[in-house]
Amino acid sequence: MTSLAAAGLDLRRGRVEMAHGGGGRTMSRLIEAMFVDALGNEYLRQRGDAARLEAVDGRLVMSTDSHVVSPVFFPGGDIGSLAVHGTVNDVAVAGARPLWLSAAFILEEGFPLADLRRVVASMAEAARAAGVPVVTGDTKVVERGHGDGVFITTTGVGVALAGVEIAAARVRPGDSVLVSGTMGDHGVAIMSARAELGLETEVVSDTAAVHGLVAAMAAVAPGAIRWMRDPTRGGLAAALNELARDAEVGVALDEPSVPVRPQVEAACELLGLDPLYMACEGRLVAVCAPDAADDLLAAMRSHPLGAAAARIGEVTGDALRLVTMRTGFGGTRVVDWLSGEQLPRIC
Amino acid sequence: MTSLAAAGLDLRRGRVEMAHGGGGRTMSRLIEAMFVDALGNEYLRQRGDAARLEAVDGRLVMSTDSHVVSPVFFPGGDIGSLAVHGTVNDVAVAGARPLWLSAAFILEEGFPLADLRRVVASMAEAARAAGVPVVTGDTKVVERGHGDGVFITTTGVGVALAGVEIAAARVRPGDSVLVSGTMGDHGVAIMSARAELGLETEVVSDTAAVHGLVAAMAAVAPGAIRWMRDPTRGGLAAALNELARDAEVGVALDEPSVPVRPQVEAACELLGLDPLYMACEGRLVAVCAPDAADDLLAAMRSHPLGAAAARIGEVTGDALRLVTMRTGFGGTRVVDWLSGEQLPRIC
Repeated sequence: MTSLAAAGLDLRRGRVEMAHGGGGRTMSRLIEAMFVDALGNEYLRQRGDAARLEAVDGRLVMSTDSHVVSPVFFPGGDIGSLAVHGTVNDVAVAGARPLWLSAAFILEEGFPLADLRRVVASMAEAARAAGVPVVTGDTKVVERGHGDGVFITTTGVGVALAGVEIAAARVRPGDSVLVSGTMGDHGVAIMSARAELGLETEVVSDTAAVHGLVAAMAAVAPGAIRWMRDPTRGGLAAALNELARDAEVGVALDEPSVPVRPQVEAACELLGLDPLYMACEGRLVAVCAPDAADDLLAAMRSHPLGAAAARIGEVTGDALRLVTMRTGFGGTRVVDWLSGEQLPRIC
Repeated sequence: MTSLAAAGLDLRRGRVEMAHGGGGRTMSRLIEAMFVDALGNEYLRQRGDAARLEAVDGRLVMSTDSHVVSPVFFPGGDIGSLAVHGTVNDVAVAGARPLWLSAAFILEEGFPLADLRRVVASMAEAARAAGVPVVTGDTKVVERGHGDGVFITTTGVGVALAGVEIAAARVRPGDSVLVSGTMGDHGVAIMSARAELGLETEVVSDTAAVHGLVAAMAAVAPGAIRWMRDPTRGGLAAALNELARDAEVGVALDEPSVPVRPQVEAACELLGLDPLYMACEGRLVAVCAPDAADDLLAAMRSHPLGAAAARIGEVTGDALRLVTMRTGFGGTRVVDWLSGEQLPRIC
């Protein structure tokens, strides 16, 4: 174990330097003191460029995500916890139990070492809470003006849950559409952290690891879960439009059933945005056989991350593959793909 | 399959826009037309956020690397091929057969789509040649001035080769140190691609996937291979100093035995650099039981990537854990850790 001071890292005033990515002793010390100790586990302490893991009984699942969220710190989380949750969730909603993560950091010269330590500590805490260790990593440094503080790419490997088969091709008209909680909290939390938007709200990000929730669902009706996704960039609308395209179906939503916090609704109204397109980072949307919907909802609601779970609509045979929504006023509107973008660098 | 034109991508004048990372239809089209088609394989065509893979019989190995090489295109390769080779090699020198790769792109707004296509095509070609498919990926876009064209993070998963155990703890004084080819070609190729250095040389990068070479070595003497590394950032010097630290040994090199191209030697002399610290991207350094060195060298030399393989020194019991080198003139010098950095963004 190398202390930060012994590694020549001044946490009060120190900043990332080009040498921290140079392959020499300076880099070696940064990695030891900043990453290995905080994330500490038997795999990282092997100190190779690769982690030697155990054998796994079952089909593997793999997912990767770069995280470029801006700002790095936001209400309810930061890029470190987000980078764990984002990839754990991608593995989980593929119907798998996440086992291991890798983490690759691209640091910008000048990024405060104190901020880096805060990000790594948050990543370590999220990984511990999720029970998914960061087993291997990488650090690169780019010159000032060629990055933006810190980008983190995490990759997750998991093992398929027995009896669960997530595939758009299994989705049928009449299937139920469920969500695990309120939509858009993460997106609004990021907006409120961007000073230039002048948005004041108390909404915090929903960022969380949903693999426990998925396991709870799989425990009651594994075969009935046909498709899942975590509605991140582009929100619920993007996730369901992808489903409609890939499964060659339509989706009919019922607006009053879609859980949205009043503060999220208000913030979106103020900025002319739609909560259906706002990113979540700790929610899932699932399509299931209709006769299993009640059991799955009950399982979700008895999990801390699924208290506000709801059935929000159903799959249709619409040949146009549209996602539509019956509004609270009795009308129907098309929930189209997001054209352009609503808010960049949300995750 | 979506053609580039049908996806609204103008290869002649088009550039990456923020919407290409926004989660909407524009992003979906970019991914389909630019990535899925070029890298095309059964896993990517599942179109989820995660790839469903097969079960694996044996211990897994996992490694990740962000690639931020500058410039993106250099003699002998580009960031696309490098991102495949870099991670395939990290998995290979851990004593494993690489099975799958993930690839996460961080694109800077304004990066030419034609350059992106060239990078993806090169990545696809490298993955095909290596027989290691890119099974899942991610695309993020950051605003102009917050990135540098393209960064690519690849993560590799492999399965341990039977009978091979790579561990610094297995290294003993008297062991032989082998390299698979000339040192420093990649570093000099990158330098020659940086106009501001004014270096003219015909050296091309050695970038290549060494897993076939590792398999050839494992076929003749699996148990005799005690430690391996690909000497990238910080070159041979960094790799051997890490070995000395982790194995608590010294290393004595014989300068005339270390293969270095005359052009690399000349370029380094011109710029006041040392080939021992220059990155390679298609070489490996191995430590083996001394009585197996000849067999392993013969196996390496009969592989296309090992023609210039050489025994360059031996492990010592030096309590100071120094890497030293007997020079051509009969003296001895310490090959210390690189302090500071020799050349940033080499990989």
